Amino acid sequence: MKTRAAVAFEARKPLEIVEVDLEGPKAGEVLVEIMATGICHTDAYTLDGFDSEGIFPSILGHEGAGIVREVGEGVTSVRADDHVIPLYTPECRQCKMCLSGKTNLCSAIRETQGKGLMPDGTSRFSYKGEAIFHYMGCSTFSNFTVLPEIAVAKIRDDAPFKTSCYVGCGVTTGVGAVVNTAKVKPGDNVVVFGLGGIGLNVIQGARMAGADRIVGVDINADKEEWGRKFGMTDFVNPRSVGNVVETLVNMLDGGADYSFDCTGNVEVMRQALECCHKGWGTSIIIGVAEAGKEIATRPFQLVTGRNWRGTAFGGAKGRTDVPKIVDWYMNGKIEIDPMITHVLSLEDINKAFDLMHAGESIRSVVVY
Amino acid sequence: MKTRAAVAFEARKPLEIVEVDLEGPKAGEVLVEIMATGICHTDAYTLDGFDSEGIFPSILGHEGAGIVREVGEGVTSVRADDHVIPLYTPECRQCKMCLSGKTNLCSAIRETQGKGLMPDGTSRFSYKGEAIFHYMGCSTFSNFTVLPEIAVAKIRDDAPFKTSCYVGCGVTTGVGAVVNTAKVKPGDNVVVFGLGGIGLNVIQGARMAGADRIVGVDINADKEEWGRKFGMTDFVNPRSVGNVVETLVNMLDGGADYSFDCTGNVEVMRQALECCHKGWGTSIIIGVAEAGKEIATRPFQLVTGRNWRGTAFGGAKGRTDVPKIVDWYMNGKIEIDPMITHVLSLEDINKAFDLMHAGESIRSVVVY
Repeated sequence: MKTRAAVAFEARKPLEIVEVDLEGPKAGEVLVEIMATGICHTDAYTLDGFDSEGIFPSILGHEGAGIVREVGEGVTSVRADDHVIPLYTPECRQCKMCLSGKTNLCSAIRETQGKGLMPDGTSRFSYKGEAIFHYMGCSTFSNFTVLPEIAVAKIRDDAPFKTSCYVGCGVTTGVGAVVNTAKVKPGDNVVVFGLGGIGLNVIQGARMAGADRIVGVDINADKEEWGRKFGMTDFVNPRSVGNVVETLVNMLDGGADYSFDCTGNVEVMRQALECCHKGWGTSIIIGVAEAGKEIATRPFQLVTGRNWRGTAFGGAKGRTDVPKIVDWYMNGKIEIDPMITHVLSLEDINKAFDLMHAGESIRSVVVY
Repeated sequence: MKTRAAVAFEARKPLEIVEVDLEGPKAGEVLVEIMATGICHTDAYTLDGFDSEGIFPSILGHEGAGIVREVGEGVTSVRADDHVIPLYTPECRQCKMCLSGKTNLCSAIRETQGKGLMPDGTSRFSYKGEAIFHYMGCSTFSNFTVLPEIAVAKIRDDAPFKTSCYVGCGVTTGVGAVVNTAKVKPGDNVVVFGLGGIGLNVIQGARMAGADRIVGVDINADKEEWGRKFGMTDFVNPRSVGNVVETLVNMLDGGADYSFDCTGNVEVMRQALECCHKGWGTSIIIGVAEAGKEIATRPFQLVTGRNWRGTAFGGAKGRTDVPKIVDWYMNGKIEIDPMITHVLSLEDINKAFDLMHAGESIRSVVVY
């Protein structure tokens, strides 16, 4: 079949909207009509050429929502007309990682996914006879895409695509880091570094979990208003205080129970660790650092009881947890609508990257 | 009263065995006759001048066992003739840290203890009219010492002093890191870097907890025999393999569930983290690094599910956990006797430092 898609033919060039060829689903695969997709910093990171493992030509996009249109042989967990969210972290429920009960990092199709291919080692996309690579196992910048069955989460039919697509990455990453990785409890004090989309979702996750103090930290004073909308109780601008770690430790009577880095800056990651409470404070790295950058601290910080951790996709097991997060949204436990700041057509998708680079959007979404 | 003690008059000089003056216990304090004391690397670290917070003249020693001879006003939890182990990490059961249930790092007397003083801000020791400072709140290199009530753990009367003194630091630090901090479970795979006294106690803690593979790592091939005595199942000499991290990850089908650094070397701490299993592996820093040294890694190591932690005094709450560890020793669940490689008189205490510096002892003990 043919489908409209925004193709990244090479790094550092605008996406091109073209008709590509898409092969139907093979055994264990499903064809999904993408109804909406968010544009995430990770897409920009790859398009801007920072990802040393980026592959071109490819169809980017990994934060979508859509409808199953056809299923391949042997597919049993979803069927045509099911509403689904593609999962860049699949959940096979069979591998050592899934069966461990200790991580969401399913390893079933990691190798082929990293090469831009389906599990059988081939691509379903082509343009003028040349293969186009998949991206993060999703390629949601195409109106239709093919996904492994283990990489789709079935969600309720009444969730709007325009907002629930954001659960495919940003919402789950932020809320999940609080709920699955940190396991924040009522009364905990939380510090969030970086009030972009992920940071705001950490904030609302902490609010939902009953945190007492939710301190946002950002060098952009305009972010204070955004943070407060989602439950932030205090705001610290590092440019207005002498020492941000000391300030936070004093504010929180010894420091944070949990801190979250949503900046990707390794110096901020260090501050996030060191503002944690002695004896038990846990810092969780969410942001993706530049290639080659390292985090550092004195080991004394850990010996005196701080914990340094990280999370990917909010520690969420996709097929199990993503439908729950959509329910939380539909039941009003978390908000998404005010975070969707720009809605575009596929033709205008390059504008979304411009808005993101200019820091002028929380989340831009393409509706097909 | 007068007591014999080994005094550190200044850094980098041998201890001097002299008669010092000791004031009796004030309110909330106890007088303890030390019957035996271990000589630990931390004593050497201070005596060698590496500890920027080291205070002289002082009476070192923090790994003792003895008998309560007198109690001050208001002391209710111990009485004369009780056998006790002094605690450099006290347990007041009243402060925010103790009440949190999340850490053993009692803060009740931290400030005065760090200054070499009793909680009332004075010293009980003097020599020729000049105050001698306490050390780590213990000063077990004195035949008699005075301790806060919250800094003694009452133990059973039938435990030999010569071996149970080792529970005052080394045994608890190693076994406790496994039991309290890591919470190793049957079937877990464990890697231990550095097979000195702490490493051997981590190994026997892992054996007691039912670990499957217990891999010891040391650049000294002679340590293999020591490790195997206490339950080590595999030995890796970094000098005999190309890449120690890769070797361990391959040996353990993806890496360690828990790794422990018992070296104090920040490069080894990094290896200990990076040999952990993706998704859940936890590395625990026990060793004390040189002042100013920092640990580092790529944040990707944490984002993909590894956890970096540390522990002090094995995460043990002294008054609660130390008596249990003595019971484990007396019941044969852990061994101490073969680790006590040298027994000396107080007069010979400087030999213990020489043996330690030469790497020729696991644990030297002074019996009074």
